[in-house]
Amino acid sequence: MALITSAVEGPIAGVFTTNRLPAAPVILDRLHLRRKVGRAILINSGNANACTGLQGLRDAEETAQRVANQLGCPRHAVYVGSTGIIGPALPMPFIRKGIPLLMQRVRRSGDREAAQAILTTDTKVKEVTLKACIGGQTIRIGGMAKGSGMIHPDMATMLAYLTTDIAIDQKVLQTSLQQAVHQTFNCISVDGDTSTNDTVLCLANGLAGNQVIRSRSSELDQFQELLEKACRSLAMQICRDGEGATKFVEIQVHGAKNHAEAKQVANTVATSLLVKTALFGEDPNWGRVIAAVGRAGPSMRADTIHLSFNEIVAVKNGEGCCASIERRIHRIMRRKTFTMTITVGKGKGSATVWTTDLSNDYVNINASYRS
Amino acid sequence: MALITSAVEGPIAGVFTTNRLPAAPVILDRLHLRRKVGRAILINSGNANACTGLQGLRDAEETAQRVANQLGCPRHAVYVGSTGIIGPALPMPFIRKGIPLLMQRVRRSGDREAAQAILTTDTKVKEVTLKACIGGQTIRIGGMAKGSGMIHPDMATMLAYLTTDIAIDQKVLQTSLQQAVHQTFNCISVDGDTSTNDTVLCLANGLAGNQVIRSRSSELDQFQELLEKACRSLAMQICRDGEGATKFVEIQVHGAKNHAEAKQVANTVATSLLVKTALFGEDPNWGRVIAAVGRAGPSMRADTIHLSFNEIVAVKNGEGCCASIERRIHRIMRRKTFTMTITVGKGKGSATVWTTDLSNDYVNINASYRS
Repeated sequence: MALITSAVEGPIAGVFTTNRLPAAPVILDRLHLRRKVGRAILINSGNANACTGLQGLRDAEETAQRVANQLGCPRHAVYVGSTGIIGPALPMPFIRKGIPLLMQRVRRSGDREAAQAILTTDTKVKEVTLKACIGGQTIRIGGMAKGSGMIHPDMATMLAYLTTDIAIDQKVLQTSLQQAVHQTFNCISVDGDTSTNDTVLCLANGLAGNQVIRSRSSELDQFQELLEKACRSLAMQICRDGEGATKFVEIQVHGAKNHAEAKQVANTVATSLLVKTALFGEDPNWGRVIAAVGRAGPSMRADTIHLSFNEIVAVKNGEGCCASIERRIHRIMRRKTFTMTITVGKGKGSATVWTTDLSNDYVNINASYRS
Repeated sequence: MALITSAVEGPIAGVFTTNRLPAAPVILDRLHLRRKVGRAILINSGNANACTGLQGLRDAEETAQRVANQLGCPRHAVYVGSTGIIGPALPMPFIRKGIPLLMQRVRRSGDREAAQAILTTDTKVKEVTLKACIGGQTIRIGGMAKGSGMIHPDMATMLAYLTTDIAIDQKVLQTSLQQAVHQTFNCISVDGDTSTNDTVLCLANGLAGNQVIRSRSSELDQFQELLEKACRSLAMQICRDGEGATKFVEIQVHGAKNHAEAKQVANTVATSLLVKTALFGEDPNWGRVIAAVGRAGPSMRADTIHLSFNEIVAVKNGEGCCASIERRIHRIMRRKTFTMTITVGKGKGSATVWTTDLSNDYVNINASYRS
């Protein structure tokens, strides 16, 4: 378990999974978010408290209430997050016992330990700290995330918690967070599975002492940039640590009718098993990329399709380049990180998605997650 | 290469991939289908003739023309099919040399050899022969198919060729085939990738001597049943031989608002990497099934969700059953074939999809398909 607390209550913003069967902590956090203030976030790993019915919701409420009692704040200022196996009930005896112990250990420099505590199949902690001068004050932003499998965010992703000392209106913060998530967490895909527990929360306690940001201003633009940078860092850390991943690939799509169609194409390529296994095998089998582009949905003309791996052109006007090019593509695919750029027409829509390969280790990890 | 010929021309029906970037043989076959008659089908494996531009189309045309010259029939009565790597040009010298050799070897009992010739990563030939008495005559139907990876049919799937001696109007045959494909080939998924080359053709040469079927009748109903039986047999053979597959799982969804939503849920479960790896690992991790159901799209209430593995209930009214049940589910998952039944509400929509697991061998096969 990990506990994040702030010295004072402050506005909090949240973005949650679009899964139609959200976990109990997501249901509770959504309710609490109506009250718009946050003081603490408690996260457990190992058990997702999903598909647990009414009992699951009661367990989440009790957890939040116990933290609230310790802090002397209302329950609605405490948020909970769970990650792990779907199905079993939360082990409440452990949680009841753990909360007072956690309270004793809360400290300023506990971030690494907290980031460690929320991991499941992750192999690395995911943290970010940034600062910037906004409105004459030094603003700090810190964040941690977990996520390695069941990663295909839609509106939100996995667990990510950000804290900042900026003074900002809750409504403005909520809009900022949604925008940042859309550009960052929603652009990664490990395995195409959108989790029941995806949650991103950002708590702003206002202790930086800047004038409260209430509307569009250069200060808000600066904060937006900082928040996006923090979210992008965490999102990329999640993607790089994707289950069994040996590659980290950026997929850029250009020339689509609009952003939505570009994203659809990028996502289809990113989630294609045949593309992902080719990435793992470092096989310059670009035909699989083209097949995925073609089945993505948007209509397109074959003779407007281009595809390149970094600077090497594989397909021009819908036709493949010569065999010698494949050796050069293979050389690029041997790198850990590279970019595939796909043009699908002459439109102005573009999108970027980050993804991983599909390795034997992904299968090994997920075929034996429990048994 | 494999060559199917009929003693006489007859009506032919076809259903093709919905991939927006279809391969040259699909483009040519679609053109030929406007003329509605077929005499021969030539299929090559190893090269998909996809993403090959104008040259690819010219190569497909030349191939069909050469077969037509040998048979003394118009080019539009010859259909071509290709399967294999996307990108490289067809090796025309081999094809030019091969066509006359194939012509010499065409014979009544060559079906097994032909079914063998069209395979790629398949491990088994896929054939079906059925007969029935329709309109006082014995009607025969024969079919062969290939397909093991890039299997997620949408309107059509991979290569499947059916021949029958029934006398039937082309328009009626086309409708029958579409209906049969929708109920069979479109209900299987190996890896979620819809190929650029998917083709199902059915050639009816009329030699059975029955009165030509031109409209709704009990004879048509009998033929429809026979055709669906043949298609279902081939579709299941494809699915069972899915790349690296160790399991063959039927997914039934009931209680959806309509068939489309039920199919959407079934497909989402069938293509979930986390579900597929759990199937491979024989891990009774039913929470992954529920997570996939929840992200499928259709809205649903958690308390109407049920899930069972064969007769063992895992989830009832949205809540998981006790741990002892998991051992019984595990016992079912150890079988090669079983059924997952999912209820998502109280509606009348239902759908069935057949799928496979995701094993290390799938990754091995596809990470090294060429390199």
